[in-house]
Amino acid sequence: MKSLARDPDLNIVLVGLQDVVEAELRTRRGKTSSRLRIHPASEVVAMDESPALAMRNKKDSSMRVAIDLVKSGEADACVSAGNTGALMATARFVLKMLPGIERPAIATEMPTVKGHTYVLDLGANVDCSAEHLLQFGIMGAMLVSALEQRDAPSVGLLNVGEEEIKGNEIVKQAADLLRCSGLNFYGNVEGNDIFKGTTDVVVCDGFVGNIALKSSEGLAKMIATMLREEFKRSMFTRMAGLIALPVLNAFKKRVDPRRYNGATLLGLRGIVIKSHGGADRFAFEHAIEQAIREVRSGVLHRITQQMATLHKDVA
Amino acid sequence: MKSLARDPDLNIVLVGLQDVVEAELRTRRGKTSSRLRIHPASEVVAMDESPALAMRNKKDSSMRVAIDLVKSGEADACVSAGNTGALMATARFVLKMLPGIERPAIATEMPTVKGHTYVLDLGANVDCSAEHLLQFGIMGAMLVSALEQRDAPSVGLLNVGEEEIKGNEIVKQAADLLRCSGLNFYGNVEGNDIFKGTTDVVVCDGFVGNIALKSSEGLAKMIATMLREEFKRSMFTRMAGLIALPVLNAFKKRVDPRRYNGATLLGLRGIVIKSHGGADRFAFEHAIEQAIREVRSGVLHRITQQMATLHKDVA
Repeated sequence: MKSLARDPDLNIVLVGLQDVVEAELRTRRGKTSSRLRIHPASEVVAMDESPALAMRNKKDSSMRVAIDLVKSGEADACVSAGNTGALMATARFVLKMLPGIERPAIATEMPTVKGHTYVLDLGANVDCSAEHLLQFGIMGAMLVSALEQRDAPSVGLLNVGEEEIKGNEIVKQAADLLRCSGLNFYGNVEGNDIFKGTTDVVVCDGFVGNIALKSSEGLAKMIATMLREEFKRSMFTRMAGLIALPVLNAFKKRVDPRRYNGATLLGLRGIVIKSHGGADRFAFEHAIEQAIREVRSGVLHRITQQMATLHKDVA
Repeated sequence: MKSLARDPDLNIVLVGLQDVVEAELRTRRGKTSSRLRIHPASEVVAMDESPALAMRNKKDSSMRVAIDLVKSGEADACVSAGNTGALMATARFVLKMLPGIERPAIATEMPTVKGHTYVLDLGANVDCSAEHLLQFGIMGAMLVSALEQRDAPSVGLLNVGEEEIKGNEIVKQAADLLRCSGLNFYGNVEGNDIFKGTTDVVVCDGFVGNIALKSSEGLAKMIATMLREEFKRSMFTRMAGLIALPVLNAFKKRVDPRRYNGATLLGLRGIVIKSHGGADRFAFEHAIEQAIREVRSGVLHRITQQMATLHKDVA
């Protein structure tokens, strides 16, 4: 594994059905390493399995065992490409929430014109209270602050920009809470601000965040498809495509979703990273990379500290 | 105006401050036409004005006068590039809603891999009940059915795809209502289905729709910026860009947002089209085109009929 070669302090524990993992390792013909070991688990959670049932019935699933390793301190983080709902439910059940955080949120990095921004929640919570959105703001800010050693990353609250209707009641209340939170609260941002990179963090409920993320993915795919179609239209366009290929590849590299693989489940007493289910080697390395960065930068400690400050201020 | 030249049955009434409109017409040096006339209005609603105040206090605004012309039957439709909230509030106040429709919705065409789809609501209503979403579904389906002479356009309900949480309560109820509505209801769709063109109509509340629309706009702009940057990087890339220019232009034409200009305010007893505030000549022509198509295809009649059928079925 490249991650192991790149990082001499990294240890990887592969959790899963022993014979399947071993067979997979053999076909990869990867070098054996003293820093790579297998931890057996006798069950697997299917992608379409009910999260509640998986959590209750599969006590020896690879997912559960991996999270147990984080709980016991044997592992510093868990990276999974499995069933998101089950991962979330199991992690919440086993690890519990950080003090003051009521709900976990899914956060991910997204590319912007200026660099990148973190958006949360992306689907863990479809109904959020203003307090939840405040907590997401704190978690997002502390994540960026830890990962990028920044003092006061800016936080925007995703809202609509129509003149009459500046958002619903919950969003209005959340804005008030964020304004008094001690965070560097920018105020409301609109959908286009995500990719403009207006703020370092964008906060929204999981329903809205999921729709924003998925529609952006859909649009990006449509654009890629149409560009390909146009370059395939004739002899001339194919030639133009060949000449433009290095440029198109450089562009593709910048927006490559694999570079943004690895969403973090924030708010838990442990680091859990969700990789895209269809991740290839390159994408999965990025998810591992995200886990390493979060462990080393002490994200959880920062969130805990900030929540303590907030509650002291309020008390 | 090109629209007049293209359509021999079209009459245009320009509503606004008489001297300003006349001066503007002179600078455009457009041919005078018996089918183009000016209707004076003494006030203008500013873009940042409160919709409620504008509606109450500016009884002779260009917006109000134009909508009054629709109400009186002097005009078949109103096209405005003004303050969306004020346009919505004024149109609702003057024209009233179609029978059975409680709230107007903003609908617009969006490009897809297969062609296009209509999405609504895009920001008129931040809080929607399941019944509102049902009504949006009916309006969207009748719009497509009228404009494209299609019998049973498919309707999708925008939702999140996480395993555990298949949407909030309102969306779940809306799905039940749509399933029994007699429409060709496809079921839930996710954000990426908009651009995949999975259904002819995508229904969502105005908060979610606005975020999806704006974030897509933001992403499209980011991609355009990045492509430009990559093609400007060196002598070689500039040359490649020149060679690829016809292909890039063909692509640009396909996704040109100006071709999708002209959102319709559905649910009113009259046709009101909202053009983008920054629309140029080409984009505004498309908004006029949209108005003409809606008038000629009898959209309002279809919505009214369908609502009557629905209520008969329920009764």
